[in-house]
Amino acid sequence: MSKRIVIALGGNALGSTLNEQMTAVKETSKAIADLIEAGHEVVVTHGNGPQVGMINEAMGALHDIKPEKYGNMPLSVCVAMSQAYIGYDLQNALREELAGRGINKPVATVITQVVVDENDKGFKNPTKPIGRYLSDKEIAECKEAGIPIMEDAGRGVRKVVASPHPTDIVEIDAVKALIKENNVVITCGGGGIPVIKQDKHYKGVPAVIDKDFASAVLAQKLDADSLIILTAVEKAAINFGKPNQQDLDSLTIEQAEKYIDEGHFAKGSMLPKIQAALEFVKSGSGKTAIITLLEKAKAGIEGKTGTRIIS
Amino acid sequence: MSKRIVIALGGNALGSTLNEQMTAVKETSKAIADLIEAGHEVVVTHGNGPQVGMINEAMGALHDIKPEKYGNMPLSVCVAMSQAYIGYDLQNALREELAGRGINKPVATVITQVVVDENDKGFKNPTKPIGRYLSDKEIAECKEAGIPIMEDAGRGVRKVVASPHPTDIVEIDAVKALIKENNVVITCGGGGIPVIKQDKHYKGVPAVIDKDFASAVLAQKLDADSLIILTAVEKAAINFGKPNQQDLDSLTIEQAEKYIDEGHFAKGSMLPKIQAALEFVKSGSGKTAIITLLEKAKAGIEGKTGTRIIS
Repeated sequence: MSKRIVIALGGNALGSTLNEQMTAVKETSKAIADLIEAGHEVVVTHGNGPQVGMINEAMGALHDIKPEKYGNMPLSVCVAMSQAYIGYDLQNALREELAGRGINKPVATVITQVVVDENDKGFKNPTKPIGRYLSDKEIAECKEAGIPIMEDAGRGVRKVVASPHPTDIVEIDAVKALIKENNVVITCGGGGIPVIKQDKHYKGVPAVIDKDFASAVLAQKLDADSLIILTAVEKAAINFGKPNQQDLDSLTIEQAEKYIDEGHFAKGSMLPKIQAALEFVKSGSGKTAIITLLEKAKAGIEGKTGTRIIS
Repeated sequence: MSKRIVIALGGNALGSTLNEQMTAVKETSKAIADLIEAGHEVVVTHGNGPQVGMINEAMGALHDIKPEKYGNMPLSVCVAMSQAYIGYDLQNALREELAGRGINKPVATVITQVVVDENDKGFKNPTKPIGRYLSDKEIAECKEAGIPIMEDAGRGVRKVVASPHPTDIVEIDAVKALIKENNVVITCGGGGIPVIKQDKHYKGVPAVIDKDFASAVLAQKLDADSLIILTAVEKAAINFGKPNQQDLDSLTIEQAEKYIDEGHFAKGSMLPKIQAALEFVKSGSGKTAIITLLEKAKAGIEGKTGTRIIS
């Protein structure tokens, strides 16, 4: 049974340097190719934490040496660049893995903007640290300009940005066109370039969109059958890390909501994954979200492992 | 009469900083929208000289401050990032310009690799300076590692790379799929990410592909009717800058080749544009290449101005 699947890769799983990335995309591509070889239609999304951090830091270093010429690079532009930085390697590795299996299927990366609401409550209370640690001079500048900053884990002060909820995908027509013509699409990299809609204009905003929530929106817009959210554990669990830890095979919407209310899933870690899975599963009937390890993606689709959230 | 048109924008016309780019893409979008509004199917390519230079310099600055963590960023990866850096702004400006005219047409940027021959003679004698001026230490390192460098116009020493001839476009299927489904496509940015083919693998190479030659290959692969190469003059000329300068309205293949032989077109400037135009026109019957100013693109297509090269 061929399914339309959105698979969301973690940014950390792609490595924090170019050399690490070039190794990581090979493993990643095997897991994705397994799904394609099994006859599924696959759309790939990915995180970009370490990568956009690197680009942001490089652009900051450029500003430091040529402040008259180069202003601060907006985070939205850094996200755009990270989509190409990752997509270029990932599309190559995936096409090569497929070609090695005798599957000549085109793979393409689409520069993707994801819309957020400018009144999203995330903007009022930014909590996501990004970029390098700031100098005393930069801290003073940020304070004067009203740019939010925070002490990060005792290691220094960084800028913080909002993590607003995604509502739409600007380039959804391009993604659909590519799928229709048999392409594997890489889209919504890093959760997408965050933009707000102002009449006909999309304006980049200093924010980072959670890639799992963006993937849930994408999967809805594409009417996908399954959303696979990859993470560092094979299954989600209740009482995680305690003697009575219990791994979860399958969850209904009601069960998942109950466990969320009981505080079983860690904020900023498993919680947003379960929430994103829920948003997708609630969006239509017969939809399944799976949370598991990269190397278990195919087994997860086959119902053999992972945590399945079903309606 | 609806035509399929590839339009090649200059990288310099897009500005050398983000602020300049955000202004430039608005003007550029008007010229492109004029063609679309007239009923043509348009595919957009662009240069990336100042932009890839900026990204390369930023990555160099990052390497300088964290050499243990970040190696030198390959030029091919910098080109990839420049495609997103430019494409993000250009796709937004163009969609907005079209929407303002009541044309709701999707616009998408495809991260595009362009294949070159690893035996291209350009690799034996690299001549294209890129990136920042090198320190004495870096010059010594390059000499030791056999990395080609050259004195650039008395201002310092820079790395030089090859400018090999493009032979194929890796993501051509994605471009075709998007056109088929009514998208305006931005592709082959900066002449494309330069890669060589090694069995099933595409390997990035330190090179810069001339965007006009890449556009000519693209226009051939897409069986376009017209290729518009935008430049800083309304028409190409013979005896350029001399009292007997004569602007050219129309050229046959034979005339163009004769003028090339006579040395009328400046190397690194008008010559490659005429050569790229010729390659396209020679590729099939009924094909037209036009060299003109951005704001004359529509008039050029209508045969009212520019230099037309016809078979």
